Amino acid sequence: MFGIAIDPESPRSLADQIVGGVCQRIDDRVLRHGMRLPPIRGMAGALGVSRFTVVEAYDRLVASGAVVSRRGSGFYVQAGAPSGERKAAAPEIVERTIERAFDNADVMREALADDPSTVKVGAGWLPAGWLDEGGLRRRLRVLAGREGQRLVCYGEAQGYRPLREQLRVRFDQFGFHAPPEQIVLTHGATQALDIVARTLLRPGDCAFVDDPGYWNLFASLRLLGVQLVGVPRTPEGPDVAALEALLEEHKPRVFITHSVLHNPTSGNLSATVAHRVLQLAARHDLPIVEDDTYGDYHPGHAHRLAALDGLDRVIYVGSFSKTLSANLRVGFLAARPELVRTFTDVKLFTSVGSSEFAERLIHDLLIEGHYRKTIERLRGRLAQAMDDGLELLDRAGFRPFAEPNGGMFVWAARPDLDPVELARDAAGHGIVLAPGNLFRPQLQATSYLRFNAAYLGDPRIDRFLKAI
Amino acid sequence: MFGIAIDPESPRSLADQIVGGVCQRIDDRVLRHGMRLPPIRGMAGALGVSRFTVVEAYDRLVASGAVVSRRGSGFYVQAGAPSGERKAAAPEIVERTIERAFDNADVMREALADDPSTVKVGAGWLPAGWLDEGGLRRRLRVLAGREGQRLVCYGEAQGYRPLREQLRVRFDQFGFHAPPEQIVLTHGATQALDIVARTLLRPGDCAFVDDPGYWNLFASLRLLGVQLVGVPRTPEGPDVAALEALLEEHKPRVFITHSVLHNPTSGNLSATVAHRVLQLAARHDLPIVEDDTYGDYHPGHAHRLAALDGLDRVIYVGSFSKTLSANLRVGFLAARPELVRTFTDVKLFTSVGSSEFAERLIHDLLIEGHYRKTIERLRGRLAQAMDDGLELLDRAGFRPFAEPNGGMFVWAARPDLDPVELARDAAGHGIVLAPGNLFRPQLQATSYLRFNAAYLGDPRIDRFLKAI
Repeated sequence: MFGIAIDPESPRSLADQIVGGVCQRIDDRVLRHGMRLPPIRGMAGALGVSRFTVVEAYDRLVASGAVVSRRGSGFYVQAGAPSGERKAAAPEIVERTIERAFDNADVMREALADDPSTVKVGAGWLPAGWLDEGGLRRRLRVLAGREGQRLVCYGEAQGYRPLREQLRVRFDQFGFHAPPEQIVLTHGATQALDIVARTLLRPGDCAFVDDPGYWNLFASLRLLGVQLVGVPRTPEGPDVAALEALLEEHKPRVFITHSVLHNPTSGNLSATVAHRVLQLAARHDLPIVEDDTYGDYHPGHAHRLAALDGLDRVIYVGSFSKTLSANLRVGFLAARPELVRTFTDVKLFTSVGSSEFAERLIHDLLIEGHYRKTIERLRGRLAQAMDDGLELLDRAGFRPFAEPNGGMFVWAARPDLDPVELARDAAGHGIVLAPGNLFRPQLQATSYLRFNAAYLGDPRIDRFLKAI
Repeated sequence: MFGIAIDPESPRSLADQIVGGVCQRIDDRVLRHGMRLPPIRGMAGALGVSRFTVVEAYDRLVASGAVVSRRGSGFYVQAGAPSGERKAAAPEIVERTIERAFDNADVMREALADDPSTVKVGAGWLPAGWLDEGGLRRRLRVLAGREGQRLVCYGEAQGYRPLREQLRVRFDQFGFHAPPEQIVLTHGATQALDIVARTLLRPGDCAFVDDPGYWNLFASLRLLGVQLVGVPRTPEGPDVAALEALLEEHKPRVFITHSVLHNPTSGNLSATVAHRVLQLAARHDLPIVEDDTYGDYHPGHAHRLAALDGLDRVIYVGSFSKTLSANLRVGFLAARPELVRTFTDVKLFTSVGSSEFAERLIHDLLIEGHYRKTIERLRGRLAQAMDDGLELLDRAGFRPFAEPNGGMFVWAARPDLDPVELARDAAGHGIVLAPGNLFRPQLQATSYLRFNAAYLGDPRIDRFLKAI
């Protein structure tokens, strides 16, 4: 295949050899700008390696700038020689980065499609049936019956103040303090993260993210033309040694990370790691965005960067989408006063405002104790589903990265399986799986998948796993 | 003042002379990087010119890149000599452009503040009391009482399909065709415009906008680092000769324009202008975004670019925020299928989804005829308020740019008054005015203001106008 040969005896990894071979052919001008690389399957067959290996090699070529991936079409040689080591000019990198934002969209669209015949074990949310739609509807009827609920006009710029007051109470419980003036309500946590990113990052900037991490975030950062650098996760949070090394090499403008019930590994930050991450951040003057979208599912005391740091360099983000309703689209952020002012402006420019009516509904559910009861019920149900799910996965030979102690995600692998192929097979059985490469900043190959415990009880999963 | 002198006998305009003087002092290195220019009031006093003239001169200096405006702080010399003619490097332009996005935020925050003691005659929306909150609440109670209203889960990626079906029917009435697959529901028209801009524009790109135009749009485009070029408005739409000349000079990636009841002039596109704009767009391969946010207030047949073009190069944007409820945040866009696919992806990445529940509510109001009746009632009430308001403004010496034949805005001027000073005075009387410079792409001075007819009946306005 273009004269690229593989030596299984070589000390270099197979993927390394493919990367080297392709770069050599680009430098030799055998492969020229705009030429299409062989499809993954074809390359794997020709070289006698797994598709898995080719995916890893192609990904690294894309990351190096030598190759560009075009959605639904394949991999193409980029902008002539020289190849592998070349640093492309900033605008090109930005263009490619933005283009790659779209790599994941198909999976996301599929997961959101209203198709009750599929089991969405790859989804990042609970089945609608688990949430308390009836309770929400009752509360909504009451609210709709009262006058002056500001159903027709624009809300306040930072969002409904009484809900911000309630959030202050919750933050106090988490061990950090934010008056309502330091809180902005948003259209879900996704908008909160987007507002923060648009404020702090410019095209070509570098952002550190969790690896694995939240892939919708990666897509929205790529859309801004931001270069992503993954900080490896351990079960106790970011790998501090790796973070330190990466900080020597890159100049990130922000580190966006999950502390509690990390998506996708369900790991929780330890006190030691929290302290060391903040020390490193201080040394490198690095702002940190702490995304706490799943934190409410944690059953006990959890460590949060915001609590150690006191919202000095930490920007805290959360949401009610995973616990009360994704449809109402209510999220929030909390930060230093001068940052909050800018975030509010960006919210105004890009969406005018959030829905005060939805914010009132959430507020009423909070003060009535409905929220607390809902969370307790969901935690109990999830714990049971998680026990059963772990057993099921264990029987099927999957090993979890860490034993989840709450939340909905299991990050698990069976090293002999290619998750991308497994997901393709599963789709034929009406099962939507989430292969682990989706959760990696450069879509690098991995043997892990993310399973949502709330869906693992479906008998189709058991049948499918038994048959592989 | 820094040795800048003004010659009232010179054939050059006073603003020209100030611009020239400042540039000369920068070239002489009398004014150096980071130095603050005198405040507008001080400069005007020292030179014996109106503040109005200094504002125009400073604005042109900012537009040229020689000076940068810092929010709440003043005007500063930028990056040393040489000055006036210098083209700054792209990243600097982008930084400054982004910074300038924030120039308008204070006014916007003030207009949104929940302060019933002020008359918001500068607002872009109707008073809450004019909209049918009671009707909305009744409909909401019915909806809340029905099961299966998807109150808790994520909606479909493109938004609630039956509402898209209803929009198709409305578009048919407007004379263009868009099946539901070509429609995306959004968090208000603002998100629709933001999605389009993020897809089509990159930092440093040029976008054509109406001058005067919709200032919240300008802020969100500046936030993307986009360079704005204003296309002057005539009462019949964009000035075609000016558009043609600007197209020779610039390479815009998009032209974003209002066709019906243009904000702020209330002008409507004529058939001739519509045809010529599309001819020019075709010759220069220019995509057009047609924002139709106020179109429903037009009482008769209106010309729309989308109808002539058939959604080939036109991207159509609209909203229910000005007619039914700003709080529900339901807007939409329609475009060619391949663009819609990309817009949907960007919507997913940056906000996951829109609120299907709010979309269902709007849908129900549409199919019951509630929407049609509401619009008819509002049109009648606005027509009366507009008659009265025009009379009031006429008595106070204000001349409208064009006689509005619908909608809520009057764009009017009294050449002897500085609108910025007038707005400052008005604020002392609890009146929020919108001086015209806010509606210009580079905040250039103008003698116009935008008045919202729905608020002009407040007796405080009459008293205030009589006293000036």
